[in-house]
Amino acid sequence: MFKTSYDSYLQIVEQYIKDMPWTEDLMSKSMYYSLFAGGKRIRPVLALATAECVGGNIQDVLPAAVALELIHTYSLIHDDLPAMDNDDYRRGKLTNHKVFGEGYAILAGDGLLTYAFELLSSRMSFPAELQLRVLHEVAVAAGRLGMVGGQVLDLDGEGKDLTLSEIEDINRKKTGALLQVSVRLGAILGGGREDQIETLTRYAQALGLAFQIKDDILDIEGDSQILGKPVGSDQKNAKATYPFLMGLEKARECLHAQTSKALEALECFGERGRFLAQLAEYMKNRQH
Amino acid sequence: MFKTSYDSYLQIVEQYIKDMPWTEDLMSKSMYYSLFAGGKRIRPVLALATAECVGGNIQDVLPAAVALELIHTYSLIHDDLPAMDNDDYRRGKLTNHKVFGEGYAILAGDGLLTYAFELLSSRMSFPAELQLRVLHEVAVAAGRLGMVGGQVLDLDGEGKDLTLSEIEDINRKKTGALLQVSVRLGAILGGGREDQIETLTRYAQALGLAFQIKDDILDIEGDSQILGKPVGSDQKNAKATYPFLMGLEKARECLHAQTSKALEALECFGERGRFLAQLAEYMKNRQH
Repeated sequence: MFKTSYDSYLQIVEQYIKDMPWTEDLMSKSMYYSLFAGGKRIRPVLALATAECVGGNIQDVLPAAVALELIHTYSLIHDDLPAMDNDDYRRGKLTNHKVFGEGYAILAGDGLLTYAFELLSSRMSFPAELQLRVLHEVAVAAGRLGMVGGQVLDLDGEGKDLTLSEIEDINRKKTGALLQVSVRLGAILGGGREDQIETLTRYAQALGLAFQIKDDILDIEGDSQILGKPVGSDQKNAKATYPFLMGLEKARECLHAQTSKALEALECFGERGRFLAQLAEYMKNRQH
Repeated sequence: MFKTSYDSYLQIVEQYIKDMPWTEDLMSKSMYYSLFAGGKRIRPVLALATAECVGGNIQDVLPAAVALELIHTYSLIHDDLPAMDNDDYRRGKLTNHKVFGEGYAILAGDGLLTYAFELLSSRMSFPAELQLRVLHEVAVAAGRLGMVGGQVLDLDGEGKDLTLSEIEDINRKKTGALLQVSVRLGAILGGGREDQIETLTRYAQALGLAFQIKDDILDIEGDSQILGKPVGSDQKNAKATYPFLMGLEKARECLHAQTSKALEALECFGERGRFLAQLAEYMKNRQH
């Protein structure tokens, strides 16, 4: 069952995070608060599942997979700040700066980002060259050419009429890059061949795009209670979305097409690719 | 001449930073602005000089040395934010958020921190194990156990009466950790033996402490124009300083003692340690 498999990956990830050396200071509490604010752990789950897909060992990949969750969490904390999206709630819970104040929220984000690289460079069972390659890819995906760059474009674009290609560029950087590197991290550390890594990268690209389109569709259709944020909050910020730009029907078609593309990429993995395929289907059909 | 040597290290560092792939967007401009806001490049200079002290090649160490400057610069940008120290000026120039706004300042900091790890994980001429070891040490020094941890303690301590040992803990983390790892990075990548790395670490610890004490003394004695910030601004923020806690005379003695300790550690390097020794002397006598 997909749900059971997902939960077992998720529990491994959450147990690892819980077992990290947290202390009683505000900094630790602030980081921990956001790490356990209802995230779905998609990035580390993708990394672990991809590693298994190419025959790798989950426990070996786990610290690196968790690093992705730390990076994702830091980006949400900074993104929610008053100077950025100014959100008081995320997933129905108060955002970090509403609980700990802006100063600690900025530092918690900085601390989580740095902690991620601490984990990625910790002693692992892989050859150092492989570990360094993965770390470099993560840094690029998280930085000015990837996620941070996407946040900047997002901030630039507020209140402006963006074109479809501008939106695609924002999404590719802001959310796509980290999702893609999650899959690549699993594929590389899992011991995948170069052609497998490339194939799984195509899966990740299609999945990332589908994920974003679905998010946008849910933002229009979704139920406020399920989503945990006010419906249409992206529109309130005058940010362009796929349904807004191409129409809801076209956006749904695009979601289907990208999901099919993701599934096609997995065909060569047969049974081993089953969970990743189910994940793509689940992403398409999810209600939150 | 010390000044000539310092400037030649500094120019190598600044040329490398200028040659990085900057673009015309606000993000690049914001990062570049703070990178060229009058920094003394102490951390990369320390790394390069230490590498030479143990017989290493400067050009090989340069990208990693520059990463230290990116990390230092990000920490200043975030530290100056309204939610933190709320400083409008640094070294006589407007702080990043006063020029680009808070949103871009937060993202410029995030971008610089991530860029540092991109540089540290880029292809170098060293064995991957060595590079990974250095990267891990930098991540620890910059993170919750080091610099970010120090910022948190600093924020915690605002308006409180701190003890000398609390102040020492803050300084060791907030500024000492990154200075220390700058020296260690140079020593490790420069090909130093383990005993040399340890000896140079002792130099770095004494230098870092002397650096902080001198800063505190200058803050009381200094001329506002030379320092580029209002004299006594640390006192204004009710932060404890060495002269405040131990008296000005005792603080001066302590500065001398730490400088001597730094010089002693260098004795075994003979002529090769000359620049690092001159640097310690210069730190002690500087007027800004």
